[in-house]
Amino acid sequence: MENQDSFVLHGNLIYTSDRNKFISLKDGYMVVEKGTITSVSAEKPAMADNLPVKDCQGKLIMPGFADMHLHAPQYIQIGMGMDYKLLDWLDGYTFQEEPKFADPDYARKIYPLFVDEMTACGTTSSAIFATIHPESTDILCDILAQKGVRAYVGKVNMDTNSAPALTEETAESLKATEDFIQKWQNHPLVRPIITPRFVPSVTAEMMTGLGQFAEKYQVPVQSHLSENPGEIELVKKLFPQDQYYMSVYDRFGLFGQTPTLMAHCIHLSDAEIAIMADKGVYAVHCPASNLNLASGLMPMRKMLNAGVKVVLGSDIGAGHTLYMPHEIVRAIEVSKIRSIENPEETPLKLSEAFYLATKAGGEFFGQTGSFEIGWSADFLITDVPEYQQERSVDEQLQNFIYHGTAQDIQEVYVQGRPVKNTRK
Amino acid sequence: MENQDSFVLHGNLIYTSDRNKFISLKDGYMVVEKGTITSVSAEKPAMADNLPVKDCQGKLIMPGFADMHLHAPQYIQIGMGMDYKLLDWLDGYTFQEEPKFADPDYARKIYPLFVDEMTACGTTSSAIFATIHPESTDILCDILAQKGVRAYVGKVNMDTNSAPALTEETAESLKATEDFIQKWQNHPLVRPIITPRFVPSVTAEMMTGLGQFAEKYQVPVQSHLSENPGEIELVKKLFPQDQYYMSVYDRFGLFGQTPTLMAHCIHLSDAEIAIMADKGVYAVHCPASNLNLASGLMPMRKMLNAGVKVVLGSDIGAGHTLYMPHEIVRAIEVSKIRSIENPEETPLKLSEAFYLATKAGGEFFGQTGSFEIGWSADFLITDVPEYQQERSVDEQLQNFIYHGTAQDIQEVYVQGRPVKNTRK
Repeated sequence: MENQDSFVLHGNLIYTSDRNKFISLKDGYMVVEKGTITSVSAEKPAMADNLPVKDCQGKLIMPGFADMHLHAPQYIQIGMGMDYKLLDWLDGYTFQEEPKFADPDYARKIYPLFVDEMTACGTTSSAIFATIHPESTDILCDILAQKGVRAYVGKVNMDTNSAPALTEETAESLKATEDFIQKWQNHPLVRPIITPRFVPSVTAEMMTGLGQFAEKYQVPVQSHLSENPGEIELVKKLFPQDQYYMSVYDRFGLFGQTPTLMAHCIHLSDAEIAIMADKGVYAVHCPASNLNLASGLMPMRKMLNAGVKVVLGSDIGAGHTLYMPHEIVRAIEVSKIRSIENPEETPLKLSEAFYLATKAGGEFFGQTGSFEIGWSADFLITDVPEYQQERSVDEQLQNFIYHGTAQDIQEVYVQGRPVKNTRK
Repeated sequence: MENQDSFVLHGNLIYTSDRNKFISLKDGYMVVEKGTITSVSAEKPAMADNLPVKDCQGKLIMPGFADMHLHAPQYIQIGMGMDYKLLDWLDGYTFQEEPKFADPDYARKIYPLFVDEMTACGTTSSAIFATIHPESTDILCDILAQKGVRAYVGKVNMDTNSAPALTEETAESLKATEDFIQKWQNHPLVRPIITPRFVPSVTAEMMTGLGQFAEKYQVPVQSHLSENPGEIELVKKLFPQDQYYMSVYDRFGLFGQTPTLMAHCIHLSDAEIAIMADKGVYAVHCPASNLNLASGLMPMRKMLNAGVKVVLGSDIGAGHTLYMPHEIVRAIEVSKIRSIENPEETPLKLSEAFYLATKAGGEFFGQTGSFEIGWSADFLITDVPEYQQERSVDEQLQNFIYHGTAQDIQEVYVQGRPVKNTRK
């Protein structure tokens, strides 16, 4: 099984093709041919006769998770300094940690730990902020590529209002970014994404150059948007001519001109929400981070109703867990808190939050995150406790999402191939 | 080391003797004699010369956790039906599950799974709701006693407004409760606690009898208080002559006359909070449960400032995790959400939330939950990743609480003896 990507999976299949309900098949069959799903059925189809069967009876098979916002260099500071407010936390931890990645040997030591844990947690697709350092960012891409998982990786750009050790010379930063794009743009799994840290840490000159790269190379963009009131005020002060925070990104071609991920999106007016929906810009909800930094409660239901594409992110190290089921649960919890004060904002159902963490995020990468014909065979296999075997597949999934841990994930596959060297 | 309870622990010690700060000793020494802590110091004391050294260098040693509210029979329904509101969830899951414990064989099958997981999570002291069934409740006590952990266990009383399969005959219920108290009142670790489910499910006659037992046998009491507005209205309707919800318990001798745990305490007036403080009644904050059921956000800071004794509980199965660090983190998150709207309610610091889950809860059982002279040697030993070895002990603890899992807990001790058969 290890080195072939055509087989039949036999077990309890569960996925969401839309967000309103789970589709589940007890003891179902999923045919994978050359890494692509070619059949999903209750009975074994004839086409499967010549393929080896991977017997997962009594186990759950679900799509891999998509973690759509995280800072890889912050992996080793997870959970530290959570008593501090944002700026003290950044100064005390993040801005101490990220400069260390100027040393490629440090990247070679830390990034494999991060990639091992992320994949052991069942994440098969991710959108990652590295640091400003080109060589370390290349190293991260190499590790992800060797591991065989999907990722968009960004060399971060910062040329103003930043700690001295993290402030780049603009032209040099742009040159390094273009080199990085050219190097990785055709990789089958690991691709570049343009990554201005956020408006306050990039000059107009930097954003002009980055917008041109987005158009020239047709690469996506990721950044932060409206995480907390102080940040929003700062953007207003720096770019007084722009109507909204998002207008700055937009003016430089960094807001939906190519596929765009914006982390947080907590404090938005109805007009801004409508613009996001109109431009098809993704909002990345990072509930653990938003709670840890007391940033606020994103109005998920309002954004979904307005047609905004919402996905989920761990946002380590402001978030503290790479295990996406924790973010699924927290997204539901945040929506329930909002519903207490705002009854018209109905809470997220589990199927909705699961969909955000699988198909909604996966679609940013192409056809991954659901079990549909023609989609990539990116999935994970989890153990089901003996005492839950009599339950329905939906209930087994509920128990796994709320009560399971990364230890329950036995295997992780991308394009029909096992992800290498997981911790098990 | 396995069968002796006198030794010297050598490793990174951390604990909270008050809630405002951690006390930590890198490569410190803790002397345990016959299960009791007799010295905590930076250097190896002379008194330790004749004792075996348990070398835990590079590891964290902290007090065991206290889980002060949970429903053991709900263990196998964790995470299920979380899309439902309270009443549908109770009807669809809890009231289907609890009647199964009429069969002692079912208790023998399920309760060991619960106790294994709870102790593997590092919980050494707990306050547990069993079910109405005397035989199954005895079985649970036997399992806990064999395991060697501390617990208060309640045979639940319900004689009105309950599902038929969970409604007792009053006199029979009282008789069974008294038998249970007499059987367990002198056990060194596992003790009885009087457990009316909550005001709506017990008659005045039942509460009269239970209050008499509390006084006669000097046993503690646990129940639920002010979890959601509908429940509070119901109590008002059932007992219109009582000023507050808590006045009902109080009138029957079930509110601080002996040590009392009240779960939730979310929707309380300032006057009620003052009464709780005055009577020394414990409020058990169950943040995961309160989020899952959209019950509300307990005003932790207000209650601490008023002098209420607050502790933490997992409240499985409305809560979804037995791993108390998850509840520590969620208690902080809930306090941060409250602080956004109510800036005078400053967020919980990590040391405060850790204190609630160790010493504050432990004191309900006696001297456990802190590393002080004369206190019981109830502790756990956790692995520290190699890449965190250079960090301070406080930072290692921060990383463990936010980023660790039950798999990082290598050993659990109660009264200087290893808890038996943990999953490792």
